[in-house]
Amino acid sequence: MMQDVLRLGGRELKSRLFLGTGKFANKMIPQVIAASGAEVVTVALRRVDLEQGEENITACIPKECVLLPNTSGARNAQEAVRIARLAQAMGCGNWIKIEVISDHRYLLPDNFETIKATEVLAAEGFVVLPYMSPDLMAAKKMVEAGAAAVMPLGAPIGSNRGLKTKELVKILIEELSVPVIVDAGIGRPSHAAEAMELGAAAVLVNTAVATANDPVAMGRAFGLAAEAGRTAFRAGPGAVSDYASASSPLTGFLHD
Amino acid sequence: MMQDVLRLGGRELKSRLFLGTGKFANKMIPQVIAASGAEVVTVALRRVDLEQGEENITACIPKECVLLPNTSGARNAQEAVRIARLAQAMGCGNWIKIEVISDHRYLLPDNFETIKATEVLAAEGFVVLPYMSPDLMAAKKMVEAGAAAVMPLGAPIGSNRGLKTKELVKILIEELSVPVIVDAGIGRPSHAAEAMELGAAAVLVNTAVATANDPVAMGRAFGLAAEAGRTAFRAGPGAVSDYASASSPLTGFLHD
Amino acid sequence: MMQDVLRLGGRELKSRLFLGTGKFANKMIPQVIAASGAEVVTVALRRVDLEQGEENITACIPKECVLLPNTSGARNAQEAVRIARLAQAMGCGNWIKIEVISDHRYLLPDNFETIKATEVLAAEGFVVLPYMSPDLMAAKKMVEAGAAAVMPLGAPIGSNRGLKTKELVKILIEELSVPVIVDAGIGRPSHAAEAMELGAAAVLVNTAVATANDPVAMGRAFGLAAEAGRTAFRAGPGAVSDYASASSPLTGFLHD
Amino acid sequence: MMQDVLRLGGRELKSRLFLGTGKFANKMIPQVIAASGAEVVTVALRRVDLEQGEENITACIPKECVLLPNTSGARNAQEAVRIARLAQAMGCGNWIKIEVISDHRYLLPDNFETIKATEVLAAEGFVVLPYMSPDLMAAKKMVEAGAAAVMPLGAPIGSNRGLKTKELVKILIEELSVPVIVDAGIGRPSHAAEAMELGAAAVLVNTAVATANDPVAMGRAFGLAAEAGRTAFRAGPGAVSDYASASSPLTGFLHD
Repeated sequence: MMQDVLRLGGRELKSRLFLGTGKFANKMIPQVIAASGAEVVTVALRRVDLEQGEENITACIPKECVLLPNTSGARNAQEAVRIARLAQAMGCGNWIKIEVISDHRYLLPDNFETIKATEVLAAEGFVVLPYMSPDLMAAKKMVEAGAAAVMPLGAPIGSNRGLKTKELVKILIEELSVPVIVDAGIGRPSHAAEAMELGAAAVLVNTAVATANDPVAMGRAFGLAAEAGRTAFRAGPGAVSDYASASSPLTGFLHD
Repeated sequence: MMQDVLRLGGRELKSRLFLGTGKFANKMIPQVIAASGAEVVTVALRRVDLEQGEENITACIPKECVLLPNTSGARNAQEAVRIARLAQAMGCGNWIKIEVISDHRYLLPDNFETIKATEVLAAEGFVVLPYMSPDLMAAKKMVEAGAAAVMPLGAPIGSNRGLKTKELVKILIEELSVPVIVDAGIGRPSHAAEAMELGAAAVLVNTAVATANDPVAMGRAFGLAAEAGRTAFRAGPGAVSDYASASSPLTGFLHD
Repeated sequence: MMQDVLRLGGRELKSRLFLGTGKFANKMIPQVIAASGAEVVTVALRRVDLEQGEENITACIPKECVLLPNTSGARNAQEAVRIARLAQAMGCGNWIKIEVISDHRYLLPDNFETIKATEVLAAEGFVVLPYMSPDLMAAKKMVEAGAAAVMPLGAPIGSNRGLKTKELVKILIEELSVPVIVDAGIGRPSHAAEAMELGAAAVLVNTAVATANDPVAMGRAFGLAAEAGRTAFRAGPGAVSDYASASSPLTGFLHD
Repeated sequence: MMQDVLRLGGRELKSRLFLGTGKFANKMIPQVIAASGAEVVTVALRRVDLEQGEENITACIPKECVLLPNTSGARNAQEAVRIARLAQAMGCGNWIKIEVISDHRYLLPDNFETIKATEVLAAEGFVVLPYMSPDLMAAKKMVEAGAAAVMPLGAPIGSNRGLKTKELVKILIEELSVPVIVDAGIGRPSHAAEAMELGAAAVLVNTAVATANDPVAMGRAFGLAAEAGRTAFRAGPGAVSDYASASSPLTGFLHD
């Protein structure tokens, strides 16, 4: 099998796991990243605030990783754009995950404002990855606006509920020309593998790792699962059938 | 984290994937075993028939693997016992997977005859792994009869349908004192990971690997998934919730 | 469409809902039965104890209903047989639901003891309905032993979890010559409808009705759902497809 | 229990089933409506074309029903608005279901154009029911634009796949101030009951009835199921639990 890489924003990524750092103690981050194999790591801008001194989260992230700041806290396109520019000015590079949220119970993204922010930031040269509600028409508009990939949610952020939007995510994967990266809701390695088996380009995990008793081990588990799912997708899985089909020869020599 | 091994029949197994060989061309078997990392490999006795000469499947299985002959073709306890003894006489060792099947559409196991065969063979010193319909009382009788583990089905053999008996398998895992190894129905790596996350001791996969376009890659995918699920089980996964929970700090510095 | 009745034990039943009374205050029972339309009503023998005087539950059950005493409390076949005979002696008729349970956490039935009790009681002329773990071979043995129907569980008793054993119950429906009545676990009307859509002959509901805020309304809801599911099964449902299919003409006159 | 009605567009509806007519032979429509109890019936404008003479579908719909023309065929807001006005001019009343679709494989709605059409038509006094992709922020915008209810899809139109967007629809029900009517994908009565149990105000069914072998019986089945689900929602269902809970008294008098 040929080398399998995800090309995104001029990078070639081997790992299909993106890791969020929003709920970690900073000192644990390097170990979790190493165990998971993640090459793309998200950070919320508040945590990169330069005045935090040695608490600066970006210092905890290995240089070879792609830093993916998110616009967490933004309630509209304008705020998201402002956060993105700040992140770039602070040295976080030109990748940006757009998160625009005004719903406080389910933290669902606002596709409308997200499209606007995507357009502005893509035009400025950012590699834009919008977090989104899995709606095909909205996703197409994000692609037109210059998104490098789309990040539909599997379930509400932090819920660990799994790939509950599977039917809609499958359609995005089938119909879009950009990578689909499942973000939010992925709570178990089996969920990550399932998303990858459907053809997702990657999965982003944060809460599921951060809330495990042993986050380092859980990071490793997700890294393995993302690879398992991707490998299976490429290996061409067999058909699912209603009936049984003997996996051992049944016609018995005992009955001859 | 301490070294994690599955102790079974006097062996210490590192891999949680058991591999079936029922649908493979013999020459492909060594590669698939190597890619998957499996240490326990099932064979149907017909395939080990000594008269088959170089086609003898056991010659394809690395010496360090545990050979797990099954009694495929047996319609009752007596036939299963006879096949087990033959397997031992042929040099296949003393592990045996009991399969007693008289239903030809769904290939469902006969728990009653399986218990009888378990009792006879365990008394003769076999390491007995019964393939079974996931019924708690039947499983308890198998354990009393001397089973080293039980192998409940996830879905009909060869169907690739997944862990459709999850509710019942969970109960077996909780209530039994022996390892529970999910057998049959596991069609995707995500299914294998899910079983392991529930606390299964291992999973057996055959059709899903054999029917993939690239069985070697698929074997590897299942090996990774079994490890991912087991690692997650040991890492202590976080809670699942109905509502969202921010993984990034939401109170925005933009709004100060 | 021809009149649709369930023939069982010499009766012709129009309702496909069996109602359990185990968790009700006696005085509420007549109303719930009337609202649900149930024609078969289960009672636990303890509640029919003649010495209870006016609390005697059987006095609450309309004469036109079939009384279905269960052997709740039995831990083996012998006890179940003894309870069945007592029920008959007390005037509860000759229908009996066999429940043999020795697991106290999940209240799972013992198929082995249940088969034995079925054989004895069927030979004595009882109309025997065994509560069972959904195992095809066990069900076949119950049928051979004289069961008038089989009652596989959908999920543990009282859990309201739904038809979690769907894959196995479907196989029983397909492979057996007697009616399959889903018992235990049915927690919502949609679960009851789903079981009937698969071809179940009836569903038994107890906890879901008894624990509702308004048990009379919930009884009515389950009666409607059982009828809806049965009607749909007979109406021959259309195919399920992966893709969309316009239900309105799409070629627009606007574009002519 | 108090009388339960759905107040919408100045009407008080008793039935929670909306019926689509897009795939029926006209002559069958009156019977199906009668059997289902539906009080709101959708029609595609092409079918109401006055020049069709006696084939005019509106002639088949009982006067007491609310006619709900849809804008099927519209690819943008402008076309939807034009169809709505035409429908009104043709005497179809002032209810309108907005359907704007430009995706031909999954027939997914365009929330953006739908919001625009909602705004225009609501301002003109239409009772606007937009068919939509289940996105909370889009739904809020439709409500702000004057929608009388929102109609999120359960699965692609005509697929009979069921309530695959359950997680998102639940959130709409919880967060919106207008009725949520599940449209598209509902393929079995159990799906309709499930939607109603979640708190949907109504369900719209078309393909599932039209493609049944016996559409009249299937219409009746869906009418019963919608009522069952609604009744259960109002009856206050009991909790779902992981463990079993005896529905019959277990402490046996046999063991005293």
